[in-house]
Amino acid sequence: MNPLSSTTRTRLTRLAERGATDRSVLHEVLDAGMICHLGVVVNGSPRVLPTCYGRLDDTLYLHGSTGASSLMAAPAQEICVTVTHLDGLVLARSAFHHSVNYRSAVIYGTPELVTDQDEKTAGLRAIIENLVPGQWDSTREPSRKELAATSVIALSLEEASVKIRQAPPSDEEEDYALDIWAGVLPVAQTFGEPLPDPLLRLDIPVPGHIAQLAAP
Amino acid sequence: MNPLSSTTRTRLTRLAERGATDRSVLHEVLDAGMICHLGVVVNGSPRVLPTCYGRLDDTLYLHGSTGASSLMAAPAQEICVTVTHLDGLVLARSAFHHSVNYRSAVIYGTPELVTDQDEKTAGLRAIIENLVPGQWDSTREPSRKELAATSVIALSLEEASVKIRQAPPSDEEEDYALDIWAGVLPVAQTFGEPLPDPLLRLDIPVPGHIAQLAAP
Repeated sequence: MNPLSSTTRTRLTRLAERGATDRSVLHEVLDAGMICHLGVVVNGSPRVLPTCYGRLDDTLYLHGSTGASSLMAAPAQEICVTVTHLDGLVLARSAFHHSVNYRSAVIYGTPELVTDQDEKTAGLRAIIENLVPGQWDSTREPSRKELAATSVIALSLEEASVKIRQAPPSDEEEDYALDIWAGVLPVAQTFGEPLPDPLLRLDIPVPGHIAQLAAP
Repeated sequence: MNPLSSTTRTRLTRLAERGATDRSVLHEVLDAGMICHLGVVVNGSPRVLPTCYGRLDDTLYLHGSTGASSLMAAPAQEICVTVTHLDGLVLARSAFHHSVNYRSAVIYGTPELVTDQDEKTAGLRAIIENLVPGQWDSTREPSRKELAATSVIALSLEEASVKIRQAPPSDEEEDYALDIWAGVLPVAQTFGEPLPDPLLRLDIPVPGHIAQLAAP
């Protein structure tokens, strides 16, 4: 499954130099994210909802309650999953050339409802491990009842595009002489100190795999 | 335009206690964000793309190049705009009860292409001011040619919903006795030190309105 596909909608028509065609870049962008935005069509109208996800090879897993209408609308119809990292505000000399530095991945496809119990568990594991590596093995695994209450869908990464902008402002030639500051204000997603559950027993310390995420 | 609407799709069917009905909460969630995810339907399929936005009263403004297909597909058809803040990873004792703390706003509507030049400029100003307050007045305003190359659409905030989760994990009664750490790992979006454009004249300092965003 290499390189990235180039269908009509994943081929970048504007600023094509911002596109990446290496599948490993797609994986990196996805693995660095914690939530995606899932787009579905409901009664002909678009609906976009944030949700968690996990990746195993070239499959993306999403989950939801069996009672959640949007995810349930997804199997057997096309969805779009977008993961975006905002990396910086690009502050140019002109309003027109303001921009943002970012990495984004867009995936199109028709997901499949995962019915195999082993794959379902592997998908849920991937979702939790994508948030906090090492977390799955530290928690109680889902019971059969909990598994039954959870829907997992699998989306192939076959039709996907990646777009990246990582650069200083690009101003009009004559604007470089202006008395205006220009540059990039970096933006990052950072973890704070872990907050123990108020109901946590006092003798249970923060495990290393969680503590290390918050470390400066 | 108060309180928030409750149409079939903005009425929360699950975990309704997470919904907010106060319009000021919607404004807060939107004003605290920098990018939204715009959902449109293209040839019957959903497409979700990240973009910047700005708010003026109960109108959201989005912009794009007149050459960008997705935004151009938007006027005269329904869109969905979602803004999400990931505030924390909710690490429960069971895999099943893992969750995230977040604030999200979802807006549905049919946007209007802004043709009035004053409103168009005001919309662009709102978009830049939403990223960095004080920035519009520090930069060169758009020329007539630049304005003509930019599309601005206006989306009413009439049909919108807000969902918020800010809480510790909620585990099964019997799981509280387990020897497993539980709590919240806070997540925040933070600014780094401003990076001057390599082509910036050395005598131009970082303006106060930018410097203060990066201050600890």
